[in-house]
Order: sequence, then C-alpha cells, then structure tokens
Amino acid sequence: MSEYSVIGKRLPRVEGIAKATGEAKYTDDIVLPKTLPGKILRSPYPHARILNIDTSRAEKLAGVKAVVTGKDTLGRKFGTWARTADQYALAIDKVRYIGDEIAAVAAVDEDTAEEALELIEVEYEELPAVFDPVEAMKEGAPQIHDGQGNISSQTRLRSGDVEAGFRQSDYIREDRFTTQGQAHCQLEPHAALASFDSSGKLTMWMPNMSPFLKRRLLARTLGMSESNIRVSKSYVGGAFGCKLELFPLDFCAALLSRKAGRPVKIACTRDEVFTTTRLRHPMIIELKTGAKRDGTLMARECRVIGDTGAYNSTGPETVYVCCFTLLKTYRCPNIKCDGYCVYTNKAISGAMRGFGSVQMRFAEESQLDMIAEELGIDPVDIRLKNAMQVGDVLPGKSEVTSCALSECIKKATDSAGWKERRGKLADNQGIGMGCATGQTAVNVGPLSSSAALIKFNDDGRITLLTGAVENGQGTETMLAQIAAEELGLTAEDVIIISSDSEICPTDVGSYTMAATFVTGKAVKLAAADAKRQLFEIAAERLGARLEDMAASERRVYVQRHPEQGMTVRDVVMAGLLKGIPILGKGYYKPPTEYVDFVTGEGKFTATYSFCAQVTEVEVDRETGQVKPVETSLAHDCGFAINPMDIEGQIDGGVAMSQGLALSEEIIWDNGQVLNPSFLEYKLPLPLNVPKVKPIIVESIDPEGPFGAKEAGESTGHIGPAAIGNAIYDAVGVRVKDLPITPDKILQALNEKEGRKR
Amino acid sequence: MSEYSVIGKRLPRVEGIAKATGEAKYTDDIVLPKTLPGKILRSPYPHARILNIDTSRAEKLAGVKAVVTGKDTLGRKFGTWARTADQYALAIDKVRYIGDEIAAVAAVDEDTAEEALELIEVEYEELPAVFDPVEAMKEGAPQIHDGQGNISSQTRLRSGDVEAGFRQSDYIREDRFTTQGQAHCQLEPHAALASFDSSGKLTMWMPNMSPFLKRRLLARTLGMSESNIRVSKSYVGGAFGCKLELFPLDFCAALLSRKAGRPVKIACTRDEVFTTTRLRHPMIIELKTGAKRDGTLMARECRVIGDTGAYNSTGPETVYVCCFTLLKTYRCPNIKCDGYCVYTNKAISGAMRGFGSVQMRFAEESQLDMIAEELGIDPVDIRLKNAMQVGDVLPGKSEVTSCALSECIKKATDSAGWKERRGKLADNQGIGMGCATGQTAVNVGPLSSSAALIKFNDDGRITLLTGAVENGQGTETMLAQIAAEELGLTAEDVIIISSDSEICPTDVGSYTMAATFVTGKAVKLAAADAKRQLFEIAAERLGARLEDMAASERRVYVQRHPEQGMTVRDVVMAGLLKGIPILGKGYYKPPTEYVDFVTGEGKFTATYSFCAQVTEVEVDRETGQVKPVETSLAHDCGFAINPMDIEGQIDGGVAMSQGLALSEEIIWDNGQVLNPSFLEYKLPLPLNVPKVKPIIVESIDPEGPFGAKEAGESTGHIGPAAIGNAIYDAVGVRVKDLPITPDKILQALNEKEGRKR
Repeated sequence: MSEYSVIGKRLPRVEGIAKATGEAKYTDDIVLPKTLPGKILRSPYPHARILNIDTSRAEKLAGVKAVVTGKDTLGRKFGTWARTADQYALAIDKVRYIGDEIAAVAAVDEDTAEEALELIEVEYEELPAVFDPVEAMKEGAPQIHDGQGNISSQTRLRSGDVEAGFRQSDYIREDRFTTQGQAHCQLEPHAALASFDSSGKLTMWMPNMSPFLKRRLLARTLGMSESNIRVSKSYVGGAFGCKLELFPLDFCAALLSRKAGRPVKIACTRDEVFTTTRLRHPMIIELKTGAKRDGTLMARECRVIGDTGAYNSTGPETVYVCCFTLLKTYRCPNIKCDGYCVYTNKAISGAMRGFGSVQMRFAEESQLDMIAEELGIDPVDIRLKNAMQVGDVLPGKSEVTSCALSECIKKATDSAGWKERRGKLADNQGIGMGCATGQTAVNVGPLSSSAALIKFNDDGRITLLTGAVENGQGTETMLAQIAAEELGLTAEDVIIISSDSEICPTDVGSYTMAATFVTGKAVKLAAADAKRQLFEIAAERLGARLEDMAASERRVYVQRHPEQGMTVRDVVMAGLLKGIPILGKGYYKPPTEYVDFVTGEGKFTATYSFCAQVTEVEVDRETGQVKPVETSLAHDCGFAINPMDIEGQIDGGVAMSQGLALSEEIIWDNGQVLNPSFLEYKLPLPLNVPKVKPIIVESIDPEGPFGAKEAGESTGHIGPAAIGNAIYDAVGVRVKDLPITPDKILQALNEKEGRKR
Repeated sequence: MSEYSVIGKRLPRVEGIAKATGEAKYTDDIVLPKTLPGKILRSPYPHARILNIDTSRAEKLAGVKAVVTGKDTLGRKFGTWARTADQYALAIDKVRYIGDEIAAVAAVDEDTAEEALELIEVEYEELPAVFDPVEAMKEGAPQIHDGQGNISSQTRLRSGDVEAGFRQSDYIREDRFTTQGQAHCQLEPHAALASFDSSGKLTMWMPNMSPFLKRRLLARTLGMSESNIRVSKSYVGGAFGCKLELFPLDFCAALLSRKAGRPVKIACTRDEVFTTTRLRHPMIIELKTGAKRDGTLMARECRVIGDTGAYNSTGPETVYVCCFTLLKTYRCPNIKCDGYCVYTNKAISGAMRGFGSVQMRFAEESQLDMIAEELGIDPVDIRLKNAMQVGDVLPGKSEVTSCALSECIKKATDSAGWKERRGKLADNQGIGMGCATGQTAVNVGPLSSSAALIKFNDDGRITLLTGAVENGQGTETMLAQIAAEELGLTAEDVIIISSDSEICPTDVGSYTMAATFVTGKAVKLAAADAKRQLFEIAAERLGARLEDMAASERRVYVQRHPEQGMTVRDVVMAGLLKGIPILGKGYYKPPTEYVDFVTGEGKFTATYSFCAQVTEVEVDRETGQVKPVETSLAHDCGFAINPMDIEGQIDGGVAMSQGLALSEEIIWDNGQVLNPSFLEYKLPLPLNVPKVKPIIVESIDPEGPFGAKEAGESTGHIGPAAIGNAIYDAVGVRVKDLPITPDKILQALNEKEGRKR
C-alpha cells in the first residue's frame, strides 16, 4: 500500500467540469465590452522587398477604427530569446514567407476589417526565394536575412575522439534520414485579446504556456515595463509548444487596441494556424555509427540540418536538442555532431512536443535496428547493452541521477510479447521498438524557476497561487495533489488560481518539461511552509512538541497519539484569532545552467525521463497502408503523481508520433502550404490510433517532488522509429524519409521485389 | 525636511484615473454574458404575519427564469455577527417593516421581472405595529421578534461610584437629547451580481467594505463552505458603513442564480437604498453630569435608547459605542451608562460613519457648553481641563497611548480666531466648538487581522495583494505609499490587487477604522520582509554586510557608501537568476480583544484618534435658517500618510455631520419613509458646505505604521455639537433635537422672546 493518500492516485481533473460544461473560457470566448475584431494583412509572396504600404484608403473606410503597420512598431526584432530575435511584429523591410504580417486592421466587425485589408495597397519588389535548406546553405543562395547568411546558428558537440572510435569499431554504417513539417493541430486556434486602459496598462488574454515569458517578450517588443502588462488567464485548448512564443497577432492586437482605445481581439482562422504560427522542423540527419561486434556503440558522427523557415523561432535550440539527443539515450564514448539551423522562405518552424528529439530518435532508433540486424543481435539486446544507467555522465556535465531505461525496455517488450512475436508474426505483420529520453526542466535563463503561494481559507481549505499553465496535461490536478498530500488535505480542498502574471508569483510556465519538476517542487515547498505554520499553531494549542506533529485527513495531530489533534479548519481559525493567517510560500530553481548551444557546455537539464515503446503493425502489401495494431509504452517518469494523467499523456504521445510516422505532413509548393486544413492535412483520427498499453515505471528521482520528473513529452518521441522498425519486421522494407506513406512503402516493396526478381 | 520620501506626501489617488475615465467598474457596470436582472417583492405592511405566498402565476410568466421565496433558503437567520443574527434572507414567518423582502424574481428583462412580482400573491395577517422605541420598550407593546421582547440588547457600563461622584459635584445638570434617522446617501446604489458555476462555486460582486466578512456571512447563511464562495472586486461608490453588511438582495441574487443557472444581477433603486438598506440609528440620550465649580467632571449618568428598526443589524454595537463614547474624550472618574437597543417596525438602522459616537458627541458637547456657561468658564477651558491625555486608562482596560486632543483644541480654536470671535461677533453670528475621539481597529473577532503579500516584478516594481477595500477614503494610495516608503520605491511602482477574497490574503477590510492601522501595518511588514530579501541578494552581490544595506530611489546600496549599490531592478533580476523570486509577506493583529457589549470589559480598540472642530454660523432670525460660514477642524491621526487624503476626509466629515446637524432626516409616517429620494431628503449641496480649514496634528502612535492611526471617521462626529453650540452663541437658543431645522429655531426664538416679554 502506498504511503501517500493523494499523490499516486487516479484523480479526475480539477478543471474537468469547467471544460466539460463549456464554462472554461478560452481566449476567443472572453467578452469585453466594445471589443473590436482585428484582421491581419499577410504577404502573398515568399520573398519580397516592401517598397511602400498605403493604408489611406483602408483608414477612410467607415467602421475602421485603427490600422497599424511596421511604422507603428518600435522596429524591434522579437524572438523567443533575445539572442536569436529576428522577426518584426509587422514587416519593416521585407517579407520572408507567404503569410508574413504586413498590416493589421481593427474595425466594428469582421467583414469591415476584411474589406479594409483589401484596401491596403502594398508595393512589393519580388525577390528570388529558396525553399530547400540544403540549397539555402549554398553560396549564392538568396539571402533571407540580409547580410548574415542563411545559416542562423550552428551546434558543434564533441565528445571523445570520433576518429579513434571508428577505428576501434568492428562495424560502421551511415544513413541519411529526413523528416517533414508537422502541424501541432491544437483544437483551439490562436487568438489574442488586448485591452489598454487609460493609464497605459495593457491586459492580454492569449493561449500561452508561460504568462511570465509572454509578459517579458511583450514588454521588450512594445517598449513597455513588465509591470504595465498583465497576461491574464484564459484556458488553453492544446499547446504542444506552439503557444509558447509570441506571434505578430499578439502584438497587432496590442497595437490596434492602443490606437483604437478599445479592446481588440484577433482570432486566427485554421488556415492561419497552419501557415503562420509554428510547425515542427523538417530535418535532414546524416548519421554514421561505429560499433563493436557485440553491439557496443563506439563512435558516432552526425550532421543535422534543421529547416527553420523564415525566422529563427526556437530553431537554434531545436537543432541543439536534436544533436544533444544523440548523447542521452545510449552510451557512446565518441561523438561528433554538427547541427545547422537554416533559413528558408517557408512557414516558420518552432517548438513542438519533443522538438529535435523526435527527429533524432527516428534516425538513431532506425539505424540501431539496422546495426542489430547486421550484427545478428536482437534489437532489445543491443538497446539493453548500450542503455544509459544511473551515474552515467553526459558530455557537457549532466549526470543521470535516476534512470529506469532498461526496466522500461524490459517491461514494454514483455507487455508486447516481444519474444513470442518478434520475427514470428504473419507475413505482413511486424513488431518494432524504440527508446527515448526526455529532458526535465531545461534551463531558459532567469525565468527558469518557480514560486508558489498557498493561503488557507477560513474553512480549512487552501488557495494555491501559481503561474503554471494548464495546457491539457493535468498540471493543475498534479499541483493540487502535491499541495494536498503535503498538507494532509484532499485534492478538492485546493482551489487553484493560475496563469496570471499579475496575481500569481513568477513561474517558469508549462514548457521545458518543468511543470512537475519545478512548479511541483515550488508548490511542495509552499505547502511545507504552510504546514509548519499549521503545526506551530496546533502544537501550541495541543501542548505538544512541534516535531511530533503530523497532518492527514484534514486533521493535525500528535504523531504517536493521533487522538490528540484538531481539524485543520480549527487550526486555521485558531491562527486567525491569534492574528496569524496561514500563508505558505515556496520557490525552486532547478539545478541547471544556461547552455551554450554551440558547444553544449553546461547542465542543460535537471534530470532525464525515459521511455521504451513497442508497436505492432500490419502492412497491406497491395496498398502500402500501414495499420498500427497495438502499442506498449513504458515510461520512467520518476514518480506518477497522477497515473491517469500520465496514461493520457502516453495515449497522446503515441497518437501524435504515429501521425508523424505515417500520415501528417505539411506539403509545400514554392513556399505555399498546400494543405492548411483538417480536410487535407492527415491527422490520425481516434479510430486510426491503436490500443495503447501504458506502463508507468517509477525510478524516484532524488531531486524531483516526491521523486517525480518529466512525464509525457517524451512519450511522443518514438512513434516513427518503432513503427518504421515494425514495418521492416513486417515486410522487410525501410523508409528513411518521414512520413512513411503508402506510396513510399509500395515503392520500397517494388524496389525490393525488383531486386529479388 | 521629512525623513520620508513617499509617505507624508500629497500624492494623487492610485485609482484616480480609472475613476475619472469611467474605466473603474462598479457592480452594476460589470457585464457577464447571459446575466438576468432580478427584482425583489417587498412588504407593504410594517408588521404582518405571512399566511401564504403563491408564486405559481409568476413562475408561468414567459421570460421568468427563477422565483425564490423563504422556502428556497435554509431558514437561517443572518446578521453582521452570529450572536445578533435575527434577519432572514427572505421572510419566513412575518414581515417586520415596510420593505421587508418576501420573494425575488429573475427574468429576461426588468419589465418581465417587475410584472412577475405583481403576479406573486401574498396572503398577510396584519399585526399591530410600533414605531416609537419608548413605546416599544413598554410592556404590552407589539412583539416584533416573537417571544423575546423588543429590547434586543443592553449595555451597562460602570466606572467608579456615580452616586458618590454626584455628591462630590458642585453642579449637576440633566438633559435629554434626541437624534434622527440619517441616510448614507452613497452615490452608488447597492447592487449584487451573483454567478454560480456548474461545480457549485459562487462568485459575487457587490459593493462591500470587507470581502472576507461578506464571504463568511454568505457561507453561513447559504450553508456553503467559504472556499466555494468568491467575493470578487468591484469598485465601491461610497460606503460609510452601509456596505459592510449583507443584504437580502445579495442572498436573492445568489439564490436566483443557483436556481436559474445563469448570472443574476439585482440593482437597487434609490428608493430601495433609502428604505431597505441601512440608516443611522435615531437615539434618545438622557445625560446627567456633575462637575466641580472649576469645571472638573465628577460624575455622569446616562441612558441611551437606540432605535434599530425591524432588525438588529449593528444596533447592539452602536448602542455600546454610544455608551463607550462617554468614556473616551474627557476624563470622568464616575460613570454609569445604560444603553438599550430597541426594535421598532421601521426601516433598519445600521453602521454609519461614527455610529453611536456622533449621537453621544451631540449630547455630551452640547451639555458641556451649557455647564461651562453656567459655571462661567470658557468652552475651550472646560475642554482642556478635562481632555484625555496620553497614559490615561479608560474603564474596560484601554490605555490612551497617543493623544493630541489638547493640541487639537488649541490649534482649531487658534485657526478659527476663537479668542477674538467667541461672544464678540455680530448679533446673529456665533462660533461653537466640540471634540471627538475615534476608535482605531475595533476588535471584530477572527476577522480583525490582516495579511499582505508583495511580489516583485521583473522590472523592479511590485504587486501588492491586499484584501483591503478602496471605498473612496484613499486606502489603496495609502497602502501604496507605505509599501513604497519601506522599499525605497515610488508609489507608482506599486500595483495593487485588492478586495478579492480568492486571490488576496485575509484582511479585516475597510471598516472598524482598521485600514491604515491594521492593513497598513501588514503591508509595512510585508514590505520589510521583501526588503530583507532584496538586501540579502544585494549584499551578496556587492560583497557588503546585510546590516549595512539601505534602499531609496529605486536603488539598494551600502548605507555609508551610497555609490556602492545597484538598482532594485538589477537586484530582482539577480534574484531570479539565483532562483529567488522576491515575495514578501506580512500580517498584523491589533492589540485588541473581543469586547462584551454588556459590560464593555476588554480592550475594544487599539488606539484613539482625536478631533476638535470649531464652526462659525450665521442665523437668520426671520427664517430660522442657519448658514455655516467656516469650520476649522484639527485632527490627531497619529501620522498623515497622505495629508491630501486626510484633508479630503475632513471636508467630507464636516459636510456629513453638517447634514446631520441641520437638514438631513428620514421622515416616517406609520413606518413608511416619506422622503426616499434626493429631491425630498435634504442632503447638503456643495454650496451649502462652508470653507473648511483642515489642520493635521501628528501624535505618532507607538503602534501604528509610521505612527499612523484612524484618520477621517472621527472628523464626522462633531458637526451637530459645534453647530448647535455656535447657534447658541449666535442667537442664544439651544435645540436638543436633531436636526436643528429652521422651524425648531424659530420656535425656540419665539419661546425665548416670549419668556423675555
């Protein structure tokens, strides 16, 4: 039986009822009196110089309340981080992709705003464009950001002596893998509601993953002070990384609101979400691996090219993470990995669940199966042989402090019946596997830490103030469980006030896989602080010693004499009568450093989570259709605060990475996205996603709250590799270019059979 | 030059712009989607038994969404305090005054709701009613609250030996004074907006003086848990005590919202505000005083009858305060004061600025002038002789810890030119004076203390979370000044989040004269806590000792080497980089006890403020019209955090008490208020209020924040006395029955001249 009464339980979502009833207000649901709708004029060209923008006709249209262009901005470049900022709130000089923002209009209704957009006259000088990152890297390619080349950043990870490692290898192979653009497909389109008051204070509602990060970026770009900006709570209908950043639409809503003197709301169409927010980076990964005959990895050399589109967004860190991913799942003494983040005249790539990791896992896990086959080793064995273990130190200083990767491999393969099924299934059926390692609490500078406040209400229940954001992962439920466990309450006793930069204490936000590890820890510390105050009051009232006090089931009592106690409510009231309102605070900074993305020096992540996934597929040799049949996924998340939520994450991870493996793909034609809708973009539907058998493995991280660490993000890393390996097991062909669509399988089958013939 | 840079300054209101532009949202301005208007059915009888209520026809009316009656309540009695709770949310058994709430309707629009009210059929059995408290006290009077008599509570203060005191007196006189019902006349009518969500959580917006008190009372009466209720912020358009309590309209909004499943807003008409919220207690004060020939007060015996109307509201404490007022301005060794709070079938009396004090001051200060005249002593001298001094201990344990009453008397009379003018003005001109003593931070049980939270934003400015309410007194500005002073910031650096029971820490609220003393102190302590954290971070960065640090002008530096320092913003960022977000907390409980209103035993108030007022008048002997010409008011408020705000309070106090003295009066006919509108109720207009010369006297209270104590409430205590005394000085007649209307003056003049003839 668990020693815990609230954590480790399959509790329902604290925000579940609000979401089920529709009471949860998403940004576009929020009604402010006199709100004007806003619309954005976008570039029809992938690359052009702007010679002139004439908004005079639009401004004269009846019903138009404000028009803004680059001239209304401070001309400051923004980006997720200052060092990679390269985008303007509204185009100043050039447009760099089809969809680039040129002007915005606020009017009395949407039709008028649309009509006004058509009245804005923009004079362009078309420029040659480049869409292929390899072409873009060549000398003489069109320069997308004038005067700096199209390689926006480079990573050069070095560990050991790669040449020596290859010399010591018995076997070496080299492969080239390519991955596609993928859309996040959150159900909630991006939106922004901005309202300036007459004192010059800006309040914004927008789906986000960190109100404090958004506040900071708004302040920088708009030239305002952080305290003059409030990022207020709205519910978030899925984020997956895409709602981390600021977008021109956010700035446009703010600029239009300031100019019009009324609230302005801009809500994206689904087309705009597909084409002008963020996508997963298409990548080219050339991977060379050397191994001993027994499968021991000896050396790896890798070249990564990430296509970031027209702007950096999180491109530099995505390329870094892709390279870093080569270090973090399997031991290998000699590694050389070069990464290039490259501009093209396409829609912008950015943060998406498992960014960088997913692409490298496809390459690494696919190649590992090929090596295993050629060395005559079972894929499970080669993974167990090389798997990361507790105490391993990664290049760049990170130590693996908790690790159940081997256990994940064993449990996932056991669950899937690996031994009985691998190579033993019917002709068109196969089983494949892969592993993954998640980061936890990646360092993002001064906003890497979290604070939490807990105040007791008169009825003995608590209000928790946290800047964390509930994006659908169960963050709030998890935090409620942590606070309740620490204080001897139930999760229903916790009221959460979250995601508001004004009323909540600073928080890293729900990205960088930090919510459980960082915010959860801050909440645990705040609860412990409040508990100490409870105990002080109760000990005095009970005539007991402070160190003997305990709390559970809404009571505070003497540990060895539980009958000597009082209800938490009575302790709270006793405190109030003494003039001591119970207020707990906690804060936590993870033990990480800000890492140089070139060399990778520094402790990038606090700890690592691990996954092993086994997927069984059926391949239709006639049509090339792949049907995933069942997936077992074992996840070392340290400790499962809420197993049901983690299982939900596993379900989602399997589905999302299946889409990447088999069907999802942004299709471009000369920089134009050809499939910006759910009709044409092939997201897996619920019936397409196989049965998932989730397995939670607890390694009890020494630093995480109750031993917990990242849970969920890494469960979406493995689909392409596991499915690709299963397809190979089923029909003997391997497609190294994602997605593995029926046409590619048919072509590979034809080639294979042609070779046979 | 002041040692302070922010406090003691005449700073503009922090909420001034929002109020001036209309951005400040009062309850009736708040727009929630799908809100239904609500209306209340009220009793047309002053006293009747309810035999039956039939709402069926109203429920069937198209557009009616909910109808509630007493059956929809839990039948729990509510009141400001549990021990005096005697009112139902909706009438259960009887109606006790014209206006008593019987039923409420929520409908799609106001007209439909009004129409539905007319369709509710109520069967009454009329009961004999009683309107005069003296009649009500008699045996055989109609029983308003069955089975308990009409005296709802008694006070019996005893100090010394009154009989002996009178025996030792050279002079004894006895007078009977009566005071009238007065309306608060806040510009904002009462309103309540209630919204239940599907989880059963109730959010309410209503003008209030303490969200935590309102939350507690809502929870008790609705049978809910405090954590399931949020009292959210709305601006308050004047309170003066009248928005302290809960009203049936608040419960009706909540009950209707729960039943209709939609938000419900009830906004009072001005008529309803006059007749069904709260009024100042009409009182009868019979005061007998014995004095030595030199004016030394020797004994006082007093009988107070307070007319609380149909329900207790704050009647018991008002009568107690009235009696207690006899103890707190002038020394007198022997006192006996009996108070009776009496029910009548009239509109309800309740808390109003200076409740109890105002009435007693009229009696005491009027009689003191009569005693002085008959003993041949100047009114100034008799007051100085008996004035309370530091170190005096009041019966019931309260010590006077700071007191500048004598200085106030001297400064006010100097300012008014007392010596040159008293008795030396033209025939119909006169000058009169009076004094007053204010309580500070009266004990109201577990909700007597305050907590405050301060969080630093990334730009070095702060957000202050406080449950205090800005009712117009300048509370928020004062709190901003205190926090800024302590932290070396400016008042503009302070963002205030206030008046929300969910996000703010517990607070006594802006009543009981506690905002400066209690909340101000909690804020000062929170700022000091945050400052300590600032200093720790800065000391480490600067290589200095913690105890050498200082803060001013947004910098933290080494005290004796100011050039060694850093900006507060840089300290905050340094803290964030170390993972230490600066969060200060403070809490404060004033040194008071919960007092027994019968015996008055206990420390009722933390400290005392003092006032002296001198008013000059002109009386028209033909019409009886009194025209106040000029008022000097000296106020010992300990320390003036914002002198401009205190001067505003003095202006308001002089105006409000002038209305009570001369023109304002609720006129009843058999329980019916005859003048429930601004047309008929004679509120002084700006041109009627004389020039006010405010004088701030600082006594530096040893306990208050920066020496501050109650500021403002007591400035409204003296008008009737000072004006009455001035009228006597002008024309030689004294009216002991408020208000001193022209007809009463003419009658007194006629009587006097008749006597002369």
